[in-house]
Parts: sequence; C-alpha cells; structure tokens
Amino acid sequence: MEGILTEACSLAGHWGLGKLIVFYDDNHISIDGDTEIAFTEDVSGRFEALGWHTLWVKNGNDGYDEIRKAIQEAKSVTDKPTMIKVTTTIGFGSPNKANSYAVHGAALGTSEVEATRANLGWPYEPFFVPEDVKSHWSRHIPQGAALEADWDAKFAQYEQKYPEDAATLKSIITGELPAGWADALPQYTTESPADATRNLSQQCLNALAKVVPGLIGGSADLASSNMTLLKMFGDFQKDTPEERNVRFGVREHGMGAICNGIALHTPGLIPYCATFFVFTDYMRGAMRISALSEAGVIYVMTHDSIGLGEDGPTHQPIEHLVSFRAMPNMLMFRPADGKETAGAYKLAVLNRKRPSILALSRQKLPHLPGTSIEGVAKGGYTISDNSTDNKPDYIIMSTGSEVEIAVKAAEELTKEGKTVRVVSFVCWELFDEQSDEYKESVLPEAVTARISIEAGSTLGWQKYVGSKGKTIGIDKFGASAPAPKIYKEYGITAENVIAAAKSL
Amino acid sequence: MEGILTEACSLAGHWGLGKLIVFYDDNHISIDGDTEIAFTEDVSGRFEALGWHTLWVKNGNDGYDEIRKAIQEAKSVTDKPTMIKVTTTIGFGSPNKANSYAVHGAALGTSEVEATRANLGWPYEPFFVPEDVKSHWSRHIPQGAALEADWDAKFAQYEQKYPEDAATLKSIITGELPAGWADALPQYTTESPADATRNLSQQCLNALAKVVPGLIGGSADLASSNMTLLKMFGDFQKDTPEERNVRFGVREHGMGAICNGIALHTPGLIPYCATFFVFTDYMRGAMRISALSEAGVIYVMTHDSIGLGEDGPTHQPIEHLVSFRAMPNMLMFRPADGKETAGAYKLAVLNRKRPSILALSRQKLPHLPGTSIEGVAKGGYTISDNSTDNKPDYIIMSTGSEVEIAVKAAEELTKEGKTVRVVSFVCWELFDEQSDEYKESVLPEAVTARISIEAGSTLGWQKYVGSKGKTIGIDKFGASAPAPKIYKEYGITAENVIAAAKSL
Repeated sequence: MEGILTEACSLAGHWGLGKLIVFYDDNHISIDGDTEIAFTEDVSGRFEALGWHTLWVKNGNDGYDEIRKAIQEAKSVTDKPTMIKVTTTIGFGSPNKANSYAVHGAALGTSEVEATRANLGWPYEPFFVPEDVKSHWSRHIPQGAALEADWDAKFAQYEQKYPEDAATLKSIITGELPAGWADALPQYTTESPADATRNLSQQCLNALAKVVPGLIGGSADLASSNMTLLKMFGDFQKDTPEERNVRFGVREHGMGAICNGIALHTPGLIPYCATFFVFTDYMRGAMRISALSEAGVIYVMTHDSIGLGEDGPTHQPIEHLVSFRAMPNMLMFRPADGKETAGAYKLAVLNRKRPSILALSRQKLPHLPGTSIEGVAKGGYTISDNSTDNKPDYIIMSTGSEVEIAVKAAEELTKEGKTVRVVSFVCWELFDEQSDEYKESVLPEAVTARISIEAGSTLGWQKYVGSKGKTIGIDKFGASAPAPKIYKEYGITAENVIAAAKSL
Repeated sequence: MEGILTEACSLAGHWGLGKLIVFYDDNHISIDGDTEIAFTEDVSGRFEALGWHTLWVKNGNDGYDEIRKAIQEAKSVTDKPTMIKVTTTIGFGSPNKANSYAVHGAALGTSEVEATRANLGWPYEPFFVPEDVKSHWSRHIPQGAALEADWDAKFAQYEQKYPEDAATLKSIITGELPAGWADALPQYTTESPADATRNLSQQCLNALAKVVPGLIGGSADLASSNMTLLKMFGDFQKDTPEERNVRFGVREHGMGAICNGIALHTPGLIPYCATFFVFTDYMRGAMRISALSEAGVIYVMTHDSIGLGEDGPTHQPIEHLVSFRAMPNMLMFRPADGKETAGAYKLAVLNRKRPSILALSRQKLPHLPGTSIEGVAKGGYTISDNSTDNKPDYIIMSTGSEVEIAVKAAEELTKEGKTVRVVSFVCWELFDEQSDEYKESVLPEAVTARISIEAGSTLGWQKYVGSKGKTIGIDKFGASAPAPKIYKEYGITAENVIAAAKSL
C-alpha cells in the first residue's frame, strides 16, 4: 500500500531489472483486519503496468512444486523484474489464530505454539534441528565452496589479463579508497570567484568521480538545479549500466531507499542523491534508515533556505536543519563556501557508516578568509578573530550562506573598536565530538555575548549561544521574493547582528 | 511519479469516488528532459489496476470537442473515479520553447512571450480581456445565481422539515462548534486509574465525536494500536459514507493529504489521523502542508518514545519532538496524563487554522496532582512546587511519560530538604506565546539550577534549561527491550534527575 513501493518498482520496471524477483505475500490480512477494508486494487495489474512480469502461486502454504516452478519461470524472464503473487494463509498451521490479524502484531503465546506444533506434526523441542533437516541443508556447503573456488580462479585470470580493471573492482568490493583520493578535491582560495555552493558541489562531485570508482548517483528530476550531473559519464539506463548518472525521476523516497541498498550492497559503492533540501520531507523515512543502518549515503540538498527566492514557502526549508541535527548518526553539513564544500565532501566520503547531508545554496557566496577543509573536520571553528586573549567582546556564529553576513557584522563591530570572533558551525555533530579543551578554545565560557545567525529555525542554537546570547533566524514560513529582498524583510542582516551584539 | 499519488488514488478507487475526475497532463516533459529517461510505465494501466475508469484525449492542445466529450463520458461513470490522460505539448504556442523542459521551471521571457502571442494570434495588451471573452464567461453569472437560489429554497424546506439535521449540517458548513462542546471531554482526577495516554485519547475522541458532528478520521492500519476507533460509528466505505471511521490502509502520506483536503473543504469538518509517532517520517510532507495551509488536522501519534518497548529502534522516535517543535504553525503536544490529553484535544479542536500533533504513550501513566486542562492552554506550567518565594532550589521540567519521573525525583529531593518545582512543558509553542510575566512566574531568571528530562533528543531543551542547567534525554537510537528495562538502560530515571540536580 505504501507509495514508496510504486516509486521503486516503477524504476525497477524502467530499468528492466531481470534478476529481481519479488514475492508478494498475498495473505489478505493487515493489522486492521481483512485487507478488503482498504485495499481492493488489482496488485498484479499494477505491477504489469509498471513493466513487470507477474506470476501467481495459488497455494503458497505448502505448494512447494508450484513455488519452485514459479521461481524457475521468473528466472527465465531476463529483461523484466518478476513479481510472484503468493497466496498464503497468515499464521498457517496455527489452529486458532491462522488467517487473522492476531498473528501479525503479537506472539502466538505458549499454548497456541504447542497447538501449532501438534497440528503441523513437529514433535521436536524448541531450537532442535533434526539430523535429516541438517543434512538436507548441509549439501549446500560443498556446492557453495565449489562455486567460490570457480569464482576465485576466474578472478585470478581476470586480474592477470586486466590488472587495472581488477584493481578497480577489488577496491569497490573492499571499500578501500585509492591513495590520495582527497587530493583530487578542488582547491579553492579567497581569490576563487564567488559561486553558489550547489555549483561548487558539482565541481567536487566531478573531481571525486574521477578518482573514486564507486561514486554513483543522481537527482530526483532536478539534476540541472541540484548541479549533480557527472560530466564525464552518461546516464545509467537499461542498456548502459556502466554509466553513473542515475535518473531517479520525481521519486525522493524511492531514491533514498535505492541509495541505501547501493551503500549496503558493497563497501566501495558510494551513492549520492539530490533534491531541494525542503523535499527531504518526502524521503525522511529512507534517510533515517541510512542513519540507523549505517549506510554512508551522501545527500546533496540544494536550495537550502529562503535564499532560493521566488519559489516561495513550499520550497523554502525552515525547520530542516535542526530536524537533522537531532537525528542520531546523521552528519548535517552546511558549508559556507567552496573550501567548506570540499571539506564536507571529504568527510562525507570518509564516513562510510554515517550518512551525510550537504545543505547547499542556490545563491552566490564569496570565498571567505579563514575557512578551510581542515576546519570542517572540527565541525565548528574560528574563521576570524581580532582578539588576543581568547576573550573577544563578541562571538558571532553562523553556517552556510549566513557566514558572509556574520563576517560583515564582525568587520563593522571591529571598526567600532570591538574584538569579535566569527565561528563557522558547519557541522554540529562533529563539533560536539571534539575535546572540552577544543570547545573552550572556540567558545570560551567567559564570553557570554554570543550571537547566532542562520536562515532557519533558531531552535537548538541556544545550546551554543547560551542563556545570555541572542539567536537570529526564522521561526515562521518563508515567502516568495528575490533573495536579497527576503533576507532584508526577514531580518537576516548584518545590521541585525550588530544591533543584537550591542543589546548584550 | 510520486508515491503519494498511488496511495491516494488506490483509496479513491477503493471508495469508488465517482464524482472525481483527474486530468493527467501527458506532456512527456519533466525538469530533467523527456520523461522517457525515468518514466516508461503504462499510466492508464496503473489507474485501471487501482479501480479507475480511464480515458485518453489525444489532442489536448486545441481538441476542445474531444476534451468536452471526455468530460461528459467521465461524468456518466458514477461508480468509479475517472482519469483522463490528456496528451499535450508543454508550452503550446511558444515557437522556440514548446515541447522542452525550458518551459517548466523558468519564465518564457519578454521576446518569447511576444513571439507566442504573435504565433497564437493574440493581439491584445497584457491583462486585457476582450469584450466577447468577457460576455462568453459572464453567461455563467445568472446560471450560478439561479442554482444558488434553487439550493437556498431547497435548504429552507429541509430546515423546516428536519430542523435538527439542518442545524447539524449548518454547523458543519460554518464551522461553528456546538455550545458547551468542550464539557463533553472526560473529567479525569488524580483518582482516575493509571492508563496509557493512547487509551485516554480514545476516550476523548469518542466523547468529542458525540458532540462535534464534523469529527471524522482514522488510522493508517493501526486503529487497534493507535486506539482511534469511534465506537458508535461503523467504517466509512463506498456504501456507508455516513460512517466516520476511515480505514486509510498503510498509506501515511496519502492519509495526511486526504485530511488536509477534508479540513480545507469545509470549516466544520475536523479530520484526525493516526499512526506511530515515528512514522510521521512518511507523512511529513503532508503535515508541513497542514501547517502552511492552515489546515487544522489533528495528528494522533501514539507509541511516542522508547517506552513502546520491543518493536525497537525502527519504531522508536528520538528526534521527532524537536523536529515538529521547529515546524512553523504546528502545535506539538505531549500530554502527561488524561487531564492533559483532554486539554490537548480541547486546544486541537479550537485551533482550526493550526494543525496539532498529540504524542501519546503506549505505556500506562498515573494521573498526576497538579496537571489540568487549563494548564495545557499555557503550554508550560507548574504542577508542583514546595517553595514559597518563586525561587525554588531546582526546577525540573518534562513532558508526557517523563513527568511522572520528574515528580518522583522532586519528591526525593523534597525529602532531603530541597525546594523543587516541577513544570510540565506539554506544548512549547503555546508557552512561547505567553506574556513575559507568566514566563518569569514559571521559569524565574534567578533560578539557574534547571533540569529537563524527556525520552527524546535533548536538542532544543537548552532554550528553557539555560547555560547552567542539565538536559536528560536520548541522543542515539533506541533499542528493543521492555519499557522499564530500556528506561533504566538509557538513564531516563529519577535517580539521574537527582544526580543532575546535585551536580548543579
């Protein structure tokens, strides 16, 4: 019933995944009872419309020959995925609970387990495996060993004949990154031209794709906005599986789930996927599974604030940064320029057991003095400071596109004789993992005059700003207007930072 | 391509919504180019499998007679919804941009607008409506007036014949709630038996359904876990549209979107919908639209923490409370007992332009002294305090199932001679709207020894706890274990509150 099924299965049909066989357990029971109360569609018809081959096993309870035959037939169809509808009785064998929702969400209970054992003629103790069952299954051991030996021999030949290709394949299988891969990342300086971090992200992705053979991904029908196309590759399609630009269509939830599958399938495959940051709302379930399953997916999320302009509040994220900062095992990056974007990519690639989100701007941003790839690894770090004693008059902290505003405010306050530190808080999770000494070096306890500025919800910033500080952000929905106008209207300005500082 | 389409359209087919006509703009272009790159399914076949009647208009550009005929045919099929596939050219009339993605995401531009006007033979200035167009459309005015007069006359007759039914219908149309409706809510006291707030929620829903005629809703296949069935009503189905228990199936995103539609259709319809709190990840897009569109949907979200026990981390929300506290125009309630559950329902019903989420426990909770329906309206309020001067030694703040733990810790500390205030922070948004005087009466600036305890992310609590306070919560994923065991393992205990207090 879940929509993600159609998203993923429509793509499986489009790609003609002939090796894929899906068993659909047609037991007619869901938690609320008979599926008839909410689900009367023609499931096989739906799969056929999605380009699948379908089969129907009418006795899935003990129709073993029928099941074997269906699997054989499914395997013989190699240009389409196959869905085998298998009609079963839920709780088959349980004399009192079979064919009812009571079997779905709760344990059978001791007496019904006993009754089921008796009914099925299973006289053994719990966890006992009879000898004939053991020997029946054990025959797969020598078969498997022979298959593995075959493969190893074949791979040895391949390695001799194509040493470079074999090395690449090995690195994908093991997940070992090629030496010096991070050196391929673009080197930006303060002289680099101002640019949107979404564009700088594309430069990073293209640089990485040249040296990281398992990097593969794409966008949910926003490739030209997310800037995620790999220029040296074509589209991954049915007849071009060697290419690396995946066209997910407008299917965010399916996209995230597919990337989880890629990441968990083989250590050296590094999937990335992209949409507008606000549309993470459509794929949050898959993103949480990345975090929970330790799948190092890279989420390239552009148009990361009201700065996207005219598309208006449906497209402008507000609460999304804090919502992911609170998600366990998720790295939430919001880089301020090219240097930090490259730093975020470096960490995203390194973190194979932690997914990463890169929130990227649509609007142009300058390359700021003080930002660095190394700084990103600390999560939060000082990018400018005219004090000398780790006791500046003010600490202004920010992320992404607002770091530029923080720097401007600091310059003004410095002109007025104040000492000011600017901290880029590009990844809260990494900052929180630093030593207490490091944290004190960035946010000394003695300095309570702290201001945060970020074009998103202020919730959470109190953690760094403290009881006496001020947060500047957006706690209402956005609006449709050109970026400079809406920033001014919503008070995301250097003037407001200066006023907040002076009020402390 | 989006999964929500199949979720909603599968239900439309199941319910046989014969009045529904959907036009599918078959223009073959999406932002990434030709839809062939990601979307090759048989769309009409999919809709037929979902139980729809389908039609195809091959010339949707200027085939007016074909379109009119299709609409007539769609109207004649009254037992099924109809999908009319209308093949069109995107940007029809634009000589240089028609049939390309360039028309999708950007304005045509002045010169292409000029060229299109010339091409279509439209010689008028922008915003000019020629007289013959005006008169052609104006003929609907007398027709509409006649239809309205007819309806008014019919309703007057109906009102005379069935005054009670007419009054009910009127109250649904206007949204005016019956006088004294809130008195129907259950009155709990400290003597009421301990119970899970999900069960108390069902008592509230059933009490409200008797007096609020427009209350309608259901669960995404978890009715018996969410406790959302209205006992005096049957299932809303094709042949029983007068009933009020909606069976949404496992379709969270569709469920939320359908409730938005109900709420925005008629002021007096008050939709509620339910699933496990963690599964809001599947419907967040629809929930944000509730908030943005001012649709007062009531989200009944049970199993709201690790306290749900054995289902484990896939089912245990962690970051969800803070993620919704940050969402603009959303009321996030987490009631501690029956009194607060009733209070949350009162506010949820009153807030017709602000959606509400009720996070409810699976586990039993006692009715605490000091909680009240009135307190909930303040968002955060003192439920116990043995100090006399608005300067207790400690303030312990909490929500939902952990308020009980806060109260226990306070009792222990009181025995040791301390003065302690316990604050229930049932709805942050409402607390933030209170006066500065009220806030100071609950959280006096002079008291910095503050502790929060909540079985969820600590992020955000720093706002109330302050720089010197401590937060007790969960900043990692949950685990599968019985509730008492996992609470202990994760440190969500009175002992930890006491230790935190003593460390301040």
